[in-house]
Amino acid sequence: MAVEQVLVAGEWRNAMAKSTFRVEDPATGVTLEGEFPVSEWQDCEDALNAAAAVARELRAAPAERLADFLDLYAKKIEENAAALVSIANAETGLAASPRLRDVELPRTTTQLRQGAAAAREGSWTQAVIDTKANIRSHYAPIGPVVIFGPNNFPFAFNGISGGDLTAAIATGNPVIAKANPLHAGTSKLLAECAVAALAQVGLPPATLQMIYRTSKEDGLRLVSDSRIGAVSFTGSREAGLRLKAAAESAGNPIYLEMSSLNPVILLPGALAERGEQLAAELADSCLAASGQFCTSPNLILMIAGEAAERLAANLAEILDKRPPAPLLSAGGLKGLDESVHALIDSGAKVVTGAEPAGGCGCRYKNTLLRTTATQFLAQPEGLQREAFGNATMVVTAADIAQLRQVIEALEGNLTGSIYSNLNGEDDAIYAGVAGDLRFKVGRLLNDRMPTGVALSPAMNHGGPYPATGHPGFTSVGIPASLLRFGALHCYDNVRSDRLPAVLRDKSPNAAMWRRIDGAWTRG
Amino acid sequence: MAVEQVLVAGEWRNAMAKSTFRVEDPATGVTLEGEFPVSEWQDCEDALNAAAAVARELRAAPAERLADFLDLYAKKIEENAAALVSIANAETGLAASPRLRDVELPRTTTQLRQGAAAAREGSWTQAVIDTKANIRSHYAPIGPVVIFGPNNFPFAFNGISGGDLTAAIATGNPVIAKANPLHAGTSKLLAECAVAALAQVGLPPATLQMIYRTSKEDGLRLVSDSRIGAVSFTGSREAGLRLKAAAESAGNPIYLEMSSLNPVILLPGALAERGEQLAAELADSCLAASGQFCTSPNLILMIAGEAAERLAANLAEILDKRPPAPLLSAGGLKGLDESVHALIDSGAKVVTGAEPAGGCGCRYKNTLLRTTATQFLAQPEGLQREAFGNATMVVTAADIAQLRQVIEALEGNLTGSIYSNLNGEDDAIYAGVAGDLRFKVGRLLNDRMPTGVALSPAMNHGGPYPATGHPGFTSVGIPASLLRFGALHCYDNVRSDRLPAVLRDKSPNAAMWRRIDGAWTRG
Repeated sequence: MAVEQVLVAGEWRNAMAKSTFRVEDPATGVTLEGEFPVSEWQDCEDALNAAAAVARELRAAPAERLADFLDLYAKKIEENAAALVSIANAETGLAASPRLRDVELPRTTTQLRQGAAAAREGSWTQAVIDTKANIRSHYAPIGPVVIFGPNNFPFAFNGISGGDLTAAIATGNPVIAKANPLHAGTSKLLAECAVAALAQVGLPPATLQMIYRTSKEDGLRLVSDSRIGAVSFTGSREAGLRLKAAAESAGNPIYLEMSSLNPVILLPGALAERGEQLAAELADSCLAASGQFCTSPNLILMIAGEAAERLAANLAEILDKRPPAPLLSAGGLKGLDESVHALIDSGAKVVTGAEPAGGCGCRYKNTLLRTTATQFLAQPEGLQREAFGNATMVVTAADIAQLRQVIEALEGNLTGSIYSNLNGEDDAIYAGVAGDLRFKVGRLLNDRMPTGVALSPAMNHGGPYPATGHPGFTSVGIPASLLRFGALHCYDNVRSDRLPAVLRDKSPNAAMWRRIDGAWTRG
Repeated sequence: MAVEQVLVAGEWRNAMAKSTFRVEDPATGVTLEGEFPVSEWQDCEDALNAAAAVARELRAAPAERLADFLDLYAKKIEENAAALVSIANAETGLAASPRLRDVELPRTTTQLRQGAAAAREGSWTQAVIDTKANIRSHYAPIGPVVIFGPNNFPFAFNGISGGDLTAAIATGNPVIAKANPLHAGTSKLLAECAVAALAQVGLPPATLQMIYRTSKEDGLRLVSDSRIGAVSFTGSREAGLRLKAAAESAGNPIYLEMSSLNPVILLPGALAERGEQLAAELADSCLAASGQFCTSPNLILMIAGEAAERLAANLAEILDKRPPAPLLSAGGLKGLDESVHALIDSGAKVVTGAEPAGGCGCRYKNTLLRTTATQFLAQPEGLQREAFGNATMVVTAADIAQLRQVIEALEGNLTGSIYSNLNGEDDAIYAGVAGDLRFKVGRLLNDRMPTGVALSPAMNHGGPYPATGHPGFTSVGIPASLLRFGALHCYDNVRSDRLPAVLRDKSPNAAMWRRIDGAWTRG
């Protein structure tokens, strides 16, 4: 069977490749059909040239056409849902239902449609008009966006279909997607839907390009190329930091989502009030997608005592009972085991699990580790290693003061959750704990697990370094996520008929919000 | 006379210093009174600890108090205007009037008051409320901001009084200012005004700290310290890129304004219509502050021909007639001469000037260089070297196609100006030229020189790399400039009484704009 083709410069073509790879079903260990190319630099070079050329065309494309594309792409994904779910299930081991079909696929099409609506409305450009000085500004396309998708969301964060793709296109930028090799076949099917949608709405075919894999060196060269406008990356801290250094050394903005422990803090009143329920909620959150969410709770923080012991015991019991779900890959299994053992080496004790589940497929025993705040504070770096998968760790502090010291020692995280007594018993200590945690996380939750990332305009899926590379940006939540791919453009004394329509005195559409002489107005 | 003290940890104290420096009057070459310390790392260390502690206090400070401070600081600057103008004039050679007293000082106090108004109003935080999901977000303080001020604006861009200070304080962040050593005495006087204002409004004294100078190594260590939230820098590309690499390697956001040629393009119809007037406008813009503005035109682009020859001759004549003003320092004089000769080495021809003016003080002959587009395209890097001072260069292209090639070869710039015929004669070529230029600059101007940077909410004083480090941010224009020092904070399911006032259902003030369920509303 022929090697799969890459999507470069507006067509599916044979890759410039000297080697290939195949995808394995992580649930069974069986190698799947399809041989995918590892591209040489020439594929990147051609993609960069095509992206630079098409970026100029897209600047002139009406937002309506970008929106039409996003809507149509969503429709095509729905039409091909059965095939997409089937291959994504085989490639990732994620459940076909409800996860892939009923949750992630609708999330993906919703994102695309929200992006379409945002592009159509135009408010994301934040048009600001100073009529007296005749100075006007708004956000405009930043240039070609290179997207590295993660392994854990074959649809919703896929470089060719996810939130970053949605944001890049809605802002008028072409995309070069680096498909995640662990779901190469899913990415190919998605790209075929996208190509059909592009043709149907009349956008240039090179608006979207996709390659499956490159050498590490070529990946670094790609993100540091002057023809691109920005990079987005979701994945491991190690790879992210490497790309960050390369992109930034060339002056290219890069948006990263790298790692997060997502601490969950159970205050004493909450533990006393509903400890059993909290253990069940925690287990559900920690085991969702076998713990392979960027917002999976890796750290559960409590005051030591009988209630904490009970919660730990309850949680261990639930973890023991549930059969471990497959991880995304053999590499993921190995990485999880390494991380768990690194935590043990830093002083964590095993309550349950901490070894591969055996049998066929990439399964790891549901794992609970424990340590004390004293130990955590002695080895804060080692004990903040993210264990990506179905493992979590309880940390018990002697008192609130020590619990707050643990928070103070935390690196930047995407989320932080605080559970407190519903009748106000924890209120006296809440403010201090929340005040400490607030500046360590992008999203602060009350009485809710971090694993749901709602598609809300108020969402922040971001946070302080090293959870991301910049605490001012979010990768989820439209229109805010679009700002990552906008450059601020100012027009000073530019004649009216030469202005972009959105900056003329008269609004081009009734829905768009603009800030005119200090007041947000519509229409 | 004793060595001047640094402002660290809430008090003026003797610096930890092994060496000192003095400031020279660049107009006369005379060494001024005052001996300033070169701080050892311990001063930075103490400042970092104090900043981290005070950042926590400031998070709880009401915006009203931040605003009161900025207003009062402006008032104190006005009260001390005579002394400030006198010392700034001595340290920089900039004219006491109109420049320092009538332009830059009022600009500085206006900025401070605009910052106060923005802090009071609160709209800059971009509060977004999703009532249905009970998810809310806004921009909150990013953490201590280290500001490196440039040499060319002793008030308006001074690390202790300028736009960056205004933005950092208005967003609730403490500041560590690295005073520019070329106007150390001015910075000291300003800091004294600030300290008095802080005390009067009851903000913690360590809200503002200032050191005069460090080793290069300590500067890099400072910006890469994990206790800070962000860095802002205005100055040379060389120093900026060094700081950028250090800050980013530690995950600290850094905002840079580094260098810009600010191309001015004179289309044929404009040249034919008002060539003489354009030569005069250009001369005024190029010689403003002796060419030491970040937006000074370094590159004048025209189609070759009789009209271009006439403009070049007219411009040279004006430059010859005007007496050269002093540059900011002996170092600046040396740097300008080096840059002019580097341009000559890359193929530029001297029309006039290109050597020191002789006599006492740091003066350089007003300088006009010329080259062709062919030569420019042969050595695009060498011929894009910024000559910071009273020098500019005319580039003539064979035709519009070649002129557009020159634009295409440009690096990122802060501004780009296009002059065109007022009766439409250039309209046929405008779109292509402007389309090319648009994505090379932060601010596109029509029929206006780039050297005025209005304090408008629609201003963008920013642009693509290497003019800055990120094309999405501006350092001038409130409230947009404040976003550099904001971290996005999301509240997910947080109980109402625990939310920041600006995110509760009821707005804390009638003036603030918030986006509630998709609509911007006030009050």
